Amino acid sequence: MPKVVDHARRRREIVWALWAVIHERGIDGVTFRAVAAEAGVSIGRIQHYFESKEHLIRCGAEEIVAGAEQSYRDGDSHTDPRAALDTLLTQPVPTTGPSLIGASVWYAYLARAVSDPWIRGFITDASRGTVREAERLLGSAGLSAEHAHAAAMRLVALSNGATQSVLVGAMEADVANHLITREIDRTFDDTDGPIASRTEATERTYDRAHPGR
Amino acid sequence: MPKVVDHARRRREIVWALWAVIHERGIDGVTFRAVAAEAGVSIGRIQHYFESKEHLIRCGAEEIVAGAEQSYRDGDSHTDPRAALDTLLTQPVPTTGPSLIGASVWYAYLARAVSDPWIRGFITDASRGTVREAERLLGSAGLSAEHAHAAAMRLVALSNGATQSVLVGAMEADVANHLITREIDRTFDDTDGPIASRTEATERTYDRAHPGR
Repeated sequence: MPKVVDHARRRREIVWALWAVIHERGIDGVTFRAVAAEAGVSIGRIQHYFESKEHLIRCGAEEIVAGAEQSYRDGDSHTDPRAALDTLLTQPVPTTGPSLIGASVWYAYLARAVSDPWIRGFITDASRGTVREAERLLGSAGLSAEHAHAAAMRLVALSNGATQSVLVGAMEADVANHLITREIDRTFDDTDGPIASRTEATERTYDRAHPGR
Repeated sequence: MPKVVDHARRRREIVWALWAVIHERGIDGVTFRAVAAEAGVSIGRIQHYFESKEHLIRCGAEEIVAGAEQSYRDGDSHTDPRAALDTLLTQPVPTTGPSLIGASVWYAYLARAVSDPWIRGFITDASRGTVREAERLLGSAGLSAEHAHAAAMRLVALSNGATQSVLVGAMEADVANHLITREIDRTFDDTDGPIASRTEATERTYDRAHPGR
């Protein structure tokens, strides 16, 4: 009986090894040899799944975005657009060692975007997709189309900037999450849309950020 | 007569070559040999100014921050705290090819912050310094101390996030500048502080972003 091979798993393990190499040596440090050593597999196995180094690097970016989208879709907040917005915007904020490493790999791709048109286009699409989803949720929660677009751009920029502050250690993750959730509240309070009371999520985040309160 | 040597200039040219190497090959691609080739000087001359590769890489980060601070101090908006705040927060948004490259070098340092404690500490200090300066300006412009700190954190995060969107091509620079300037206005309108009319700078930015209006 032939051995059953879990190709999706093997491929995923190679991508994980790629991320470790990017974290340690940057995107320019990526070689099939380095990734094979990190994954503990042969170079031939990597070539079986990825036709070139560039292909592997591109798949690494795609997997980061696919993982974030999956984790967003798996959230249980989809019946409430405001809670979904909170999840969408606070999810990128790194809270643990592994997610800090993940964020640093993403920053390596961002730095590369200026000189690599494929990476640039891919990140632009991903970033616009996040703005569109935020806009859709703001609309579902009652904001006018006019307000929703401007607010989505502002909220996504704030989420990216807060994520950056946490990455470099200039802000605690719970402060960043509170900043984002408070800004979602402020966006609703500012407009002619329905002025809902603060979501439970806001209060939970705030309580975590200010345990003594 | 001995030749007069402009040491500051020679040192600066080496740092510029370092940035070009980081942009092309990432921080891990930095070697004295690569920087010497890029600068068109001998390895010995680089060793004259920088004792090690790490020393050179650290000086590269320091020069980015020093250059930004110098350019902020040289601005002519220092008599008006609100205009100074606008300069502080819109200045990082890259608008031209060279400033896009500068931003990408900064992102390479950000990505490295997770694994390099010196870079992490340096960026944390720089980031906190920006928040403190924003807080000081907001206070001078009439915001209460309580409002000023929260608003400074929010505005700096927004500036960083908008800069990131421009870097990857997901947002035009003038849209990012308008977003930041509009948020400064909103910060004043929101509080019990003096509700000034929109600054001229806001209107100019908006007109640039919406030429047909």
